[in-house]
Amino acid sequence: MKLHGIFPPLTTPFGDHGELALERLSDNVARYNRTRLAGYVVTGSTGEAVLLSRDEMERVWVAARDAASLDKVLIAGTGTDSTKETIERTNRAASLGYHAALVKTPHYYKPQINDRLLAEHFLRVADAARMPILVYCVPQFTGVWVRAELMHRLAQHPNIIGIKESSGDVGNVSQIVAAVPPGCQVLVGSAQTLWPSVAVGAVGGILGLACVLPELCVELYEAACRGDGEQARALQQRLTPAAVTIVARLGIVGIKYGMEIAGYYGGPARSPLLPLTEAEAREVEAVLARAAPPPAAQDFAAHAGNPSSTESLA
Amino acid sequence: MKLHGIFPPLTTPFGDHGELALERLSDNVARYNRTRLAGYVVTGSTGEAVLLSRDEMERVWVAARDAASLDKVLIAGTGTDSTKETIERTNRAASLGYHAALVKTPHYYKPQINDRLLAEHFLRVADAARMPILVYCVPQFTGVWVRAELMHRLAQHPNIIGIKESSGDVGNVSQIVAAVPPGCQVLVGSAQTLWPSVAVGAVGGILGLACVLPELCVELYEAACRGDGEQARALQQRLTPAAVTIVARLGIVGIKYGMEIAGYYGGPARSPLLPLTEAEAREVEAVLARAAPPPAAQDFAAHAGNPSSTESLA
Amino acid sequence: MKLHGIFPPLTTPFGDHGELALERLSDNVARYNRTRLAGYVVTGSTGEAVLLSRDEMERVWVAARDAASLDKVLIAGTGTDSTKETIERTNRAASLGYHAALVKTPHYYKPQINDRLLAEHFLRVADAARMPILVYCVPQFTGVWVRAELMHRLAQHPNIIGIKESSGDVGNVSQIVAAVPPGCQVLVGSAQTLWPSVAVGAVGGILGLACVLPELCVELYEAACRGDGEQARALQQRLTPAAVTIVARLGIVGIKYGMEIAGYYGGPARSPLLPLTEAEAREVEAVLARAAPPPAAQDFAAHAGNPSSTESLA
Amino acid sequence: MKLHGIFPPLTTPFGDHGELALERLSDNVARYNRTRLAGYVVTGSTGEAVLLSRDEMERVWVAARDAASLDKVLIAGTGTDSTKETIERTNRAASLGYHAALVKTPHYYKPQINDRLLAEHFLRVADAARMPILVYCVPQFTGVWVRAELMHRLAQHPNIIGIKESSGDVGNVSQIVAAVPPGCQVLVGSAQTLWPSVAVGAVGGILGLACVLPELCVELYEAACRGDGEQARALQQRLTPAAVTIVARLGIVGIKYGMEIAGYYGGPARSPLLPLTEAEAREVEAVLARAAPPPAAQDFAAHAGNPSSTESLA
Repeated sequence: MKLHGIFPPLTTPFGDHGELALERLSDNVARYNRTRLAGYVVTGSTGEAVLLSRDEMERVWVAARDAASLDKVLIAGTGTDSTKETIERTNRAASLGYHAALVKTPHYYKPQINDRLLAEHFLRVADAARMPILVYCVPQFTGVWVRAELMHRLAQHPNIIGIKESSGDVGNVSQIVAAVPPGCQVLVGSAQTLWPSVAVGAVGGILGLACVLPELCVELYEAACRGDGEQARALQQRLTPAAVTIVARLGIVGIKYGMEIAGYYGGPARSPLLPLTEAEAREVEAVLARAAPPPAAQDFAAHAGNPSSTESLA
Repeated sequence: MKLHGIFPPLTTPFGDHGELALERLSDNVARYNRTRLAGYVVTGSTGEAVLLSRDEMERVWVAARDAASLDKVLIAGTGTDSTKETIERTNRAASLGYHAALVKTPHYYKPQINDRLLAEHFLRVADAARMPILVYCVPQFTGVWVRAELMHRLAQHPNIIGIKESSGDVGNVSQIVAAVPPGCQVLVGSAQTLWPSVAVGAVGGILGLACVLPELCVELYEAACRGDGEQARALQQRLTPAAVTIVARLGIVGIKYGMEIAGYYGGPARSPLLPLTEAEAREVEAVLARAAPPPAAQDFAAHAGNPSSTESLA
Repeated sequence: MKLHGIFPPLTTPFGDHGELALERLSDNVARYNRTRLAGYVVTGSTGEAVLLSRDEMERVWVAARDAASLDKVLIAGTGTDSTKETIERTNRAASLGYHAALVKTPHYYKPQINDRLLAEHFLRVADAARMPILVYCVPQFTGVWVRAELMHRLAQHPNIIGIKESSGDVGNVSQIVAAVPPGCQVLVGSAQTLWPSVAVGAVGGILGLACVLPELCVELYEAACRGDGEQARALQQRLTPAAVTIVARLGIVGIKYGMEIAGYYGGPARSPLLPLTEAEAREVEAVLARAAPPPAAQDFAAHAGNPSSTESLA
Repeated sequence: MKLHGIFPPLTTPFGDHGELALERLSDNVARYNRTRLAGYVVTGSTGEAVLLSRDEMERVWVAARDAASLDKVLIAGTGTDSTKETIERTNRAASLGYHAALVKTPHYYKPQINDRLLAEHFLRVADAARMPILVYCVPQFTGVWVRAELMHRLAQHPNIIGIKESSGDVGNVSQIVAAVPPGCQVLVGSAQTLWPSVAVGAVGGILGLACVLPELCVELYEAACRGDGEQARALQQRLTPAAVTIVARLGIVGIKYGMEIAGYYGGPARSPLLPLTEAEAREVEAVLARAAPPPAAQDFAAHAGNPSSTESLA
C-alpha cells in the first residue's frame, strides 16, 4: 500500500454542546476530496481520539469513510495503551473499510516503557491486525520515542508498513530511513520540517496544517519530491510560522479556528481543551495571512502559470 | 472526609488469559481488611486503569466495594483525559458507594496543558461530581505537574478535599501544604519519601508498596506522625530500597510479584507490560528480604514489645 | 572535620565598575562572625566563581580567610571541569588555610559524563588534594546528578568527607544518607527543603538564603536537629517563599539585593547576570517581609523568651 | 566575511603526560591544508577549551595560526560564562590574526538565563570585539538554546555575522535562516543533519567529523549545495553512523581515535575525559570502515570519475 503524499489528520467536528457533528465532517471531507490530498487520517491525535468514546469513534470512522472519495487512502488512528484494545480497534476499523491503522506508542507507564516493550506491543498488534500498521512516534504528547534501531526491527514484520514520525527531529527521520528496508514508508507529522524530511527520504506527511491549507502543503511536498530546493525552501519558510503557531503551539483549537478562516467547519474542541483567547485568534489570523495571502497579493513567480494550485484565504 | 493514613492502590488481578480474576481481588482485600490500612484506592494507575475497559472498571469497583470492610475508605480512580468522561466515571463510582474520587491530570495534549486548563478541568469535575475529589499529580506517568499555586486555587472548591502528590518531590509537597487551607489533605504517592513528606505536613500516603508491605508502611507512617524521627528514619531507610526497586523502577509487575512473595495474589499484568525477567525477580526478592526479614532475624529494638505489628515475609 | 550547621556561600562583592570590593567582603564576614553560622563557603556558585579570574579568586580566598573568626570552618569552592585545575585550586586554597574544598561535578561534556567518569575525577582530586573534599551536586546549574550509588563509592575514600546536595530532591538526600558510612556528612544546598532533609539525616546546609537571613536559617536548622517538628515546619513554611523566590528563581542578584535589605553589602553582580527589574526587587522585599517581619509584628510564641535569636529586617 | 564551507573544530593534541603537543597540531593542520576545508575553528568545545589554561589557549592559537595556509579562515573559540573574559579572549585572538570568534552562550547560571540575558551578553561582546562574532548554540553541552527570535535580534548587530547551531534540530536551523537577514550565515555543528540543514539554508558546517573525514564532509556539503539530493542523501546516510557514534556519543576521545585511524595525530584527552574502552574503539573502527571503506571496496557509482575526492582509511 502506497502512502506517499499529504494526509490531514481530520479534526472531529462537535456542535455547541459537545455532541458529534458528523454532517460537518462529511462537508469538510467533501471539500478535501477535491484537493490533491492522498487520503485521510481519522481519529488521530488531532481528531481528539482520547476525548471520544469507543462508540463515537466508530461513528466517526463510518462518517469519514462514507464521505471520502474512492481515490483517498483511509487510515484509522487505533492506538491506545492497551495492546488488546488496540487490536480490537484496528480490526473494527479494518472491517469498516479502512486501509491502514496508525498505532501510537503506549506511554502511560513511562518508567517501564523501553524498546523491548514497544517491540512486543507493535509486533503483537501487527500479528493480529487485519490491515497494515503504521507505527506512530509522537513524543510531544507521549514522552516516548521510536528510534532507528527499534524501527529497523519492527520493519521486518510484513504487516508494519511504515512510521509516522511526528517529533520534528529530522535526524531521527533520517536515521530511520537509513535503518528500514526500502519499502518501509516514513511519513512525518511536522509541517515545519517537511522539506528537509523529504530531502532525507520521507515519502509523505500527516500534517495538522493540511487540515487548514491542504493545497499549500501538497505544493510544498511536490516541490520537495522533485528536488526543487529553491521552491521548497521558499514554501517551507512561508508555511513554517503557521505550522509552529497553529499546530505545535495552539494545537487542535488553533487548527479548528484556522479551518474556519479557510472555509471549513472548525467548531469547538472538547473539554479540557480551552477555546482560543482573543490574542491567540489574532495570531492564527496573522500567520495564515502570511502563509496564504489573498490572490491579488500573491507574487510567487513559480506559480504564475498555475493559479489553481495556490491556496488563498481571501 | 478524613483520608489520614495509608492506602494501597489495589492491583487488578488477572487470570492466565488476561481476564479479570475478581475472586482474587476479594481474597486480597479480605486480607488487607485485617491490617491498619485506612482504605483502598481502586482502579488507580497501579490498578492498570488504562488497560481496562469501562465495563471491567465497573466490575472491579463492585468487587472491591463488596470485599472491603466497612471501616475502610473507598477511593475510585476516575480520571481520564476527557472532562466529561471523568465526570461520568466519578458519578458512577459514587453511585456504587465510593467515598471519594482520585482524578489525575489530563496529559495527552501536553503542549496545550497549563494551569488555566487544569483549573478549568478540575473545577468542572468538582462542580459536577457527586462525591469529593482528590487531585492526582503523577508526573512520572503524565509529564504534568500540580504546583502550589494551582492547588491553592483548587482547594477553594468545597468538593476538592485534597491531593495525591506522587512525584516524590518533597519541596512540592511542602509548598502545597503551605498553600492550601488546613482542611485540605495532602497525601503522597511515593513511599521512599513518606517520612520527610509527613514531616512537612502530608497526612497520608497512597503507596504501591502498601500492596506488598501494608503493615510496615503503616508503622512508618505512625512513627512519622508521632514525630519519632529516629524510628521514622530507620524504617524509611529499611523500606526505601523496596519502594525504589519494586514500585518506581519495576512498576506493576514488580508489585504483583512482591505481593505473591508476601502471600497475596499477584498474577500477570496486561500487555504491553512485560513480565519480570529472572534477574528482576531476584531483585524483588532481595529488596523485600532487606525490608521485611523473617521474624527470627528481626532485631529492631523498637519493635521488641510489639511483634504483631511487624511484617515479615517468612 | 565536622561540617554540621549552616554555612552561607559568600557572595563576592563588586564595585560599580565590576572590580573586586574586598573591604566589603570583610565587612560582611565581620558581621556574619557574630552569628551562629558554622563557617563560610568562599567562591562557590553564589560567589560568582565562574565569573572570576584565578587571580581574583585567590584574593577573595585571602580576604575571606583574614576576616573570618577562628571558630568558623572555611570551605573553598575549587571545582572546575578540569581535573588538574581542580587539584591546583584545591591545594592553593589549602595552603591559604582553608579547611575543606567544595568540588562540583564536571559538566561541560555532558554526553560523556557518567558515574565512571565522575568517580575517576573525584577520586583523583581526593588523592591529590591536601585537604578534605566535599562532593558538590548541583544539577540546576550543571545538569549532572550524584546519586547514592556513586556517593557510596566515593565515600570510601578517606579524603572525601561528604557531599553538598543542592538539587532539593529529598529522596536523593535520603538515599545518599543511607548509602554512605556514618561519618560521611550530607549537607544540602536548598533552604526550602532543609527541615525534611535534616529529618532524613542531613547534618547541615550551605544555603544562599543564609547570606540574607543567617540567624533564621540557623533557627530552622536547630529546630530540625532537636526533632521539634512543629517549630521546624512553621519556620520552614516561613522561609520557603524567600528561598524559592530569592535564591532559586532570582539567584545571585536576588541574594545580593536581599543582603542589602538585611544590612549587608550586596552590590552588583557581574555580567552576563542582569540587575533585578523593579518588579523583581519588589518581590524580594515582599518575601523577606514575610520571612522576617519587623520586631513589633513578631508573634512567634516559641521565640518569646529568646529575642536575640530572631532575625528581623526592621 | 564568508564562512561558507566545512570547518573542523581542531582537537588540541596532548602528549603522554597531558602537556600541549603543539608540533602535532602543526602536523595535523599541515595535512588539513591540502584539503578543501574552508578554515579552522581553534579552541572550540572539541578543542577541549574548558580544560585549557588561558596561557595554553593562546599558545594553541599561535600554533594553529602559524600552521594554517593563508587561504583558510581562522575562527577562535572565545566564549566563556563571563562577558568580560569573553571580550578579552576575543580581542586577544583578533590581535593574533584570527578572523572571527565563536562565542558560546553563557550557561552556568541556567535558572537566570533567558533571551534578555543572552541578548545583553552577545551585544556587549559584539560591541567590544575587534573582529566579527559567530553565536554558538550547543545545548547538548550547555542546556541553553538560541532560537529564531533571539537570533533575529542579534543579527541586526553589524559585528554578529552568523551562528553555529549545534543542536542538530533542523527545524531550529530552518527557523533561524528565515528570521535573519540574508547576509547572516548559519552554520551547523551536526554532521548527521548536514544535508537537510543545507537544504533549508545553512551555508556551512563546523563538524567534529571533519577532523576525521574532512574530504567526505566536503563532498557531502558540495552535493548538498548543488542540490544533488540523491548524492547528498547517499553520502549523508554513509556519514551519519560515524557522526552519531564518534562525535555525538563518544565525543573528543572518539574523534581523537578516529583521527589516528585516519592518519592524523589524536593522542589522549585530558582528565576527566576517559579513554575509550576496547569495545568503544572497535565501534569507532567499524563505523569508519562503513563511512570510508578502502579504495578497492568503494563502489559509489557517482564517484567513479573522481577518485581523488574520495576519502579512504585504507
